[in-house]
Amino acid sequence: MKAIEWVSGKIRLIDQTRLPWEMVFLELDDYREVASAIKEMQIRGAPAIGIAAAYGMALGAQGIEAASKEEFTAKLRPVSETLSATRPTAVNLFKALERMNRVAEAGEDVARIKEALLAEAKKLEEENEAANRKLSTYGAELIRDGFTIMTHCNTGALATAGYGTALGVIRAAKEQSKAVHVFVSETRPLLQGARLTTWELAQYGIPFTLIADTMTGHFLSRGRIDCVIVGADRIAANGDVANKIGTYNLAVLARENGVPFYVAAPTSSIDLSLSSGDEIPIEERGAEEVTHVSGVPIAPVGVGVANPAFDITPHRYISAIITEKGIIREPYVERLRKVFQG
Amino acid sequence: MKAIEWVSGKIRLIDQTRLPWEMVFLELDDYREVASAIKEMQIRGAPAIGIAAAYGMALGAQGIEAASKEEFTAKLRPVSETLSATRPTAVNLFKALERMNRVAEAGEDVARIKEALLAEAKKLEEENEAANRKLSTYGAELIRDGFTIMTHCNTGALATAGYGTALGVIRAAKEQSKAVHVFVSETRPLLQGARLTTWELAQYGIPFTLIADTMTGHFLSRGRIDCVIVGADRIAANGDVANKIGTYNLAVLARENGVPFYVAAPTSSIDLSLSSGDEIPIEERGAEEVTHVSGVPIAPVGVGVANPAFDITPHRYISAIITEKGIIREPYVERLRKVFQG
Repeated sequence: MKAIEWVSGKIRLIDQTRLPWEMVFLELDDYREVASAIKEMQIRGAPAIGIAAAYGMALGAQGIEAASKEEFTAKLRPVSETLSATRPTAVNLFKALERMNRVAEAGEDVARIKEALLAEAKKLEEENEAANRKLSTYGAELIRDGFTIMTHCNTGALATAGYGTALGVIRAAKEQSKAVHVFVSETRPLLQGARLTTWELAQYGIPFTLIADTMTGHFLSRGRIDCVIVGADRIAANGDVANKIGTYNLAVLARENGVPFYVAAPTSSIDLSLSSGDEIPIEERGAEEVTHVSGVPIAPVGVGVANPAFDITPHRYISAIITEKGIIREPYVERLRKVFQG
Repeated sequence: MKAIEWVSGKIRLIDQTRLPWEMVFLELDDYREVASAIKEMQIRGAPAIGIAAAYGMALGAQGIEAASKEEFTAKLRPVSETLSATRPTAVNLFKALERMNRVAEAGEDVARIKEALLAEAKKLEEENEAANRKLSTYGAELIRDGFTIMTHCNTGALATAGYGTALGVIRAAKEQSKAVHVFVSETRPLLQGARLTTWELAQYGIPFTLIADTMTGHFLSRGRIDCVIVGADRIAANGDVANKIGTYNLAVLARENGVPFYVAAPTSSIDLSLSSGDEIPIEERGAEEVTHVSGVPIAPVGVGVANPAFDITPHRYISAIITEKGIIREPYVERLRKVFQG
């Protein structure tokens, strides 16, 4: 299962808003459709939206008619800007677009730049899947046979180029023949845990228990959970983590109950340009995500709503950050910097 | 607005499963219907289900034909047992039934016992509303002008004989002309916050912001919340509190962020027979409450689910317990005992 793929000159992706009920593939041949798919969360997950943006650039480039590199570059700018303006929190999107823009600048003629952009997007996809497999193998060292693991949102194949991050760690543990059981928090408002993580776990044959987000502390306090693993949308230089709203709740509740709290993410989610999580922009999404579930209202019409899509977990709550370059622990500032130097 | 009332020999209650969309009154003339309404949460909230059980006893008593007190008492037993077997966590239910059974035992002839049972149920209703108004006045002393208050589940008029407990405190603050703003957590799985608390607050003209349960820590960590107030389904002798699932999450997150965490409840919710929260039975409800929202599925068919309806908040997280006999702080063991002696 691939969340996103380049197939015969088009981007094919699974419409994740319709899972787990229908498997609908979207075939996109216009970069504006890609931007819209990211914004509407038909494709979501920090690594996956980075790849979608990269392919969106390749798609946009293909549609450009230009007599010179200068004309081409000028016409590529709105493509990059449109894709950039979709979602603000996950850094993978911006890093992917930067890489693509560098490739365009380095190229010589229009035809070759178009080829190079597509090749770069494919490379980014392959790199992400390889990074996920590697970090998952590292992370699985932290999982013992018989562990019960709590996770949040969806961090599996659907959220990435393949295999997954936090869910990848759980898959790798299972592939090492360790018995694992997963507590899946449903992850309101958009229910990625209830809809997507349960659907993936069922496919991998990994047993799980779905719970409402209100129930996380109850099970953490009863000694039922051996560790918590989540993904990341952006990691600041000091190890603070932006991730799906509700992650901070889990981190505090885990520490209060002596349960290790791990973040699994490729280094492409690390943003050394920000010194702490305070600088990470938090996306505010529409009210109807809170007031409705699958289109059905759950509150009186017109109520006042807040809908921050992410929260910041300060690094002091994080037992370790699992990357494809190894498992990183405190002091995060030095060790995260080293990862990029090494 | 009365959640429950005795009207012309019947129990009239608002079907809370249909709020805020429809105001449907149920008129019940069979105690088994009352038991079913409690079990299905058409009436809910610890004080309200105590009153429903008391009126259920009065209703059951009216239907008994008996030639002697002994025959009457024997026929009343299954009424009490049926009402008792509805929900295990809130102690108000069991205390109300005990009171009603004592009245039945103390009575002399069948006709007078029937009258006395109805009078006792009415008294219980009046006592609860008076207790709520009194505890709300005490509690409002803790609320300053301009406070933003986070609350969970529904603890208003709908959950009680009238006025409310945690929501009563907020109403009393507003009636003292203090400006308040309420953050309402939606309270999955059954969404009492999103459906009922928003609906009540709108009627009282109190401004509020509805959030998903995942967002509580985010706002607590950003200095947006001045205090948290919740209700209680049962308070043990040491001050541990059983309340709607998700309460423990809020208590831990509040303390972590230096935000006072208050529990507002009438003394009828205190159970001195249990030394700690570990002894309070936690109701486990059906899987479909987690897998569905308003009848709409939110997860794949047949997934494994846990659905504890309550959690335990250890007393060390509780800044104060607000009762009609005053505001109680640590050490809870002594001070809670004193309340019952005084």
